Amino acid sequence: MSLPESLRKNMQQINELFDSSVIKKRDFDALDKIYTSDARILPPGAPLIQGRANIREFWQSAIPALGVMGLKLTSEDAHLDGDSIVEIGQGDLALNGGQTLAVKYVVHWKQEDGKWKWHTDIWNTNQ
Amino acid sequence: MSLPESLRKNMQQINELFDSSVIKKRDFDALDKIYTSDARILPPGAPLIQGRANIREFWQSAIPALGVMGLKLTSEDAHLDGDSIVEIGQGDLALNGGQTLAVKYVVHWKQEDGKWKWHTDIWNTNQ
Repeated sequence: MSLPESLRKNMQQINELFDSSVIKKRDFDALDKIYTSDARILPPGAPLIQGRANIREFWQSAIPALGVMGLKLTSEDAHLDGDSIVEIGQGDLALNGGQTLAVKYVVHWKQEDGKWKWHTDIWNTNQ
Repeated sequence: MSLPESLRKNMQQINELFDSSVIKKRDFDALDKIYTSDARILPPGAPLIQGRANIREFWQSAIPALGVMGLKLTSEDAHLDGDSIVEIGQGDLALNGGQTLAVKYVVHWKQEDGKWKWHTDIWNTNQ
């Protein structure tokens, strides 16, 4: 089913937090608001990583290593079913040196303590 | 929630069809049993592709181009919620020349005419 506008806005706020806090402020505590505690990420070029502590380690290392300066997430589709949302979207990464990188993603959202968060997060590049 | 054993077996049959029919027999009609008609795939190195006819074109071109000889899909987690299943798994691609390539994937399954099929399919490589 399609999503109520309030839920759509809530998701957008969480998505923006990754850029505004995690990337721009290197505030990795903000990941607690973004990922469920037993979330999984499936990054290109690395094995699956499970658990928020391990995910935090990944981003703490990957964001500076890749020179990520910003990430604009654009939701293209979100499908609510029971207590799950499956979202498809596009990410525009800004890298230092001025390059950009287009990625696309699928995120499975679940609620943790009444808050919607990323439970499974997979992405890859367009080129 | 966890999946009934019958549903798990049903999913495994569909997953195996990709290897046994699409790859090994180049039977691209079998994709009708695997993907919903408005399915989306998000392949690494290419933009999102929507619709079974376009997905068929992609695989008809990509399988010979990449020299794919086999694909063993191993389901690692499947989460049923309402009429959706979110599956996480690993794929072991056999390429001609004897190389292998490890990929991981997330598939969002939905029912079409009472049959469970891949509705969203995204993957990337481990290395």
